[in-house]
Amino acid sequence: MGKAINNIGKHHHKTLVIGLFGFGVVGEGLYKALQQTPSLKATIKKICIKHPGKKRNAPEELFTTDKDVLLNDPEINVIVEVINESEPAFDIVSTAFLHGKHVVSASKKMIAEHLPRLLELQKQTGKSFLCEAAACASIPVIRNLEEYYDNDLLHSLKAIVNGSTNFILTKMFEDKLNFSEALLLAQQLGFAESDPSLDVEGYDAVNKWTILLTHAYGIIEHPGNIVFNGIQNIQLSDALVAKEKHFDIKLVAQAKKLINGKVAAFVLPQFVKHDDHLSFVKNEYNGVVIESSFADKQFFYGKGAGSFPTASAVLSDISALRYDYRYEYKKLYHHTVHELSNDFYVKTYVSFDDWKFVPRERFEWIEEWHAEAERKYLVGVLPFNDLKENNWWRENNTSLILAPEPVIEDVEIRKLKKKSLELAGV
Amino acid sequence: MGKAINNIGKHHHKTLVIGLFGFGVVGEGLYKALQQTPSLKATIKKICIKHPGKKRNAPEELFTTDKDVLLNDPEINVIVEVINESEPAFDIVSTAFLHGKHVVSASKKMIAEHLPRLLELQKQTGKSFLCEAAACASIPVIRNLEEYYDNDLLHSLKAIVNGSTNFILTKMFEDKLNFSEALLLAQQLGFAESDPSLDVEGYDAVNKWTILLTHAYGIIEHPGNIVFNGIQNIQLSDALVAKEKHFDIKLVAQAKKLINGKVAAFVLPQFVKHDDHLSFVKNEYNGVVIESSFADKQFFYGKGAGSFPTASAVLSDISALRYDYRYEYKKLYHHTVHELSNDFYVKTYVSFDDWKFVPRERFEWIEEWHAEAERKYLVGVLPFNDLKENNWWRENNTSLILAPEPVIEDVEIRKLKKKSLELAGV
Repeated sequence: MGKAINNIGKHHHKTLVIGLFGFGVVGEGLYKALQQTPSLKATIKKICIKHPGKKRNAPEELFTTDKDVLLNDPEINVIVEVINESEPAFDIVSTAFLHGKHVVSASKKMIAEHLPRLLELQKQTGKSFLCEAAACASIPVIRNLEEYYDNDLLHSLKAIVNGSTNFILTKMFEDKLNFSEALLLAQQLGFAESDPSLDVEGYDAVNKWTILLTHAYGIIEHPGNIVFNGIQNIQLSDALVAKEKHFDIKLVAQAKKLINGKVAAFVLPQFVKHDDHLSFVKNEYNGVVIESSFADKQFFYGKGAGSFPTASAVLSDISALRYDYRYEYKKLYHHTVHELSNDFYVKTYVSFDDWKFVPRERFEWIEEWHAEAERKYLVGVLPFNDLKENNWWRENNTSLILAPEPVIEDVEIRKLKKKSLELAGV
Repeated sequence: MGKAINNIGKHHHKTLVIGLFGFGVVGEGLYKALQQTPSLKATIKKICIKHPGKKRNAPEELFTTDKDVLLNDPEINVIVEVINESEPAFDIVSTAFLHGKHVVSASKKMIAEHLPRLLELQKQTGKSFLCEAAACASIPVIRNLEEYYDNDLLHSLKAIVNGSTNFILTKMFEDKLNFSEALLLAQQLGFAESDPSLDVEGYDAVNKWTILLTHAYGIIEHPGNIVFNGIQNIQLSDALVAKEKHFDIKLVAQAKKLINGKVAAFVLPQFVKHDDHLSFVKNEYNGVVIESSFADKQFFYGKGAGSFPTASAVLSDISALRYDYRYEYKKLYHHTVHELSNDFYVKTYVSFDDWKFVPRERFEWIEEWHAEAERKYLVGVLPFNDLKENNWWRENNTSLILAPEPVIEDVEIRKLKKKSLELAGV
């Protein structure tokens, strides 16, 4: 973090005066964490909240409901934004930039949806925008992708980025809670979004994945263009099949560089082998597995949600601002930009109530049929485009779960199909 | 990395011209990796080697045996040093600093032994010294401790930092190889030091641990002052006891902040529970578990040795030099410096051939005795100072393996002793 320091031991860091938006689980965690780290020399001058009535664990004079009190205060040089709603967050962040303030944000939805404009604002104002808390909370994944995998050739990235669904899956399949008991518990413990459908249906995960794709591959894509699903369709019978096959079920976000140089990326439930790194990730924890040419396989694991773990990521961003740290988006600006591709195939398990809900003819081949029970299932290979362009796989109580190592390259499909048909004696 | 860049997308990075010392496993890996990352704009101008006769996979004109050709070349602005011998490495690094060059080094022994002088040279010359490859190779642990845990309160750090011993233990206890077969395999695969005793007897691990203690806690200690051992005394019978108790045996480096504010640190074989993060670390992999106030428990896992994984860490340092990145040693210069303490107790398993080799009277209490078999063992609690000041525990074929969660605080010992004696009916 060079230029700011001419001599080790001698430091002339910026004094940071913070305007904080939001005093929920994360905001209050940050407030407490800052009190316990006086060496940071960062102070919260004002906190903007929505509902003035609530009792809060901080001096009353810190609070205001008027955002301009923070945004127009020239002494405030950092806006930290940890509110829940996306559009007001974007409004705050944009204004903060234009008022010459650095911004730290934890709003994944806002960031995922407004990334192009946020990049423009950074260029235009020269201010930093840091958002480590927006993906995997306490795991320093964005900073590491920015700083460490810089010149490495990233083969793939796979991750559990939503602690809430991972907690629910763990409690359902290990502790035999039912879905709603597990969800309630996650909410009570403070690591489910206020609107549970954001977690359960995969919206939160795909927002985080959008952000990580930018830092990993320089890809800027609207979350709406990335194929995703949550865990809402997973059935008890799916869990039984998983157990029989010695798999766990996880909601896995992944990206893989294809032979054609483009990138496959999606967020879908997946069967995971017990010796897979992601199988080690239980309860509300998150985990990221990075495969690269030189470093080989690396695994980062930590709390992906909760008051202090999220506050800890915000704190690390605040700390980095003392040295004017900023993301360089190297893969976007300094390298050949990667693009997403849908020209590949996925091996997948599909369970369903009736054959009429499953377009069997679209499968390249089918390796397993189980039609005897009331709940039927098959294992087969589908063109990924079929998931991108159709909805049959998430309608009518149909449940689609990817196989372990699901991606099959376009160039390999003929060979594998032939082999599969031979095995089947066709 | 702020100041170097005024506009995102616009970059005026330094051109790096590298003088490389050493063309062994790591040096050659780096040479190949650099060829595959042209975007880095870093070139190796000259490589200094010891033995000119060998056939090497690089153009002949790159090589020299005269170190001054590199050190006196004003165009070379970075010295990368990946040789095996500690004193020549120190000589090269010191001279490089004084000639105004940045230094990247992978020589853990050299760094561990000369840290105070290296810090002085950094202050004096204002040049960067980066050594990510010196600890856990591909795992970005130093950079993360420097950048991310900056203001976090680090409770503890535990790690498997030696891939070679971890590989041997894995092969012995999972694949039933004997010690020398496992060692030979590690050497063939290129992740054992050329002198196996450096790995096997724990020297390599304690050198790495010395370096990490500086970045984690600001502690500067000569490796000779840190209690350590390797895996050379572990017996087949110890493995059987471990299996019976559902433990793995790992060589664990750890540091823990004590209630008195000081730090306990050591590198010793340890029983590790199957659900411990470190139990997940098998073969030549390394793993680091960081526990901190806010982020809670985090786990970093990756290859700790080998040509490309080590080269990848060197590469990340080279990349960071483009922005004049340097370690700030924040915990050393900007915070209250921690110091090591030996005022605590450890719960430990000891196996031995004869009672006369074990000073039973020095144990606070003993929880298990097994005197029936030819190989005897006990489980008991010892003042840590006893390990620091005596050698009985690593002589006469005696084997000492720590219990899981081995550290017992000074202030807790009376209470726990009383409870233990009550349980024993004394």
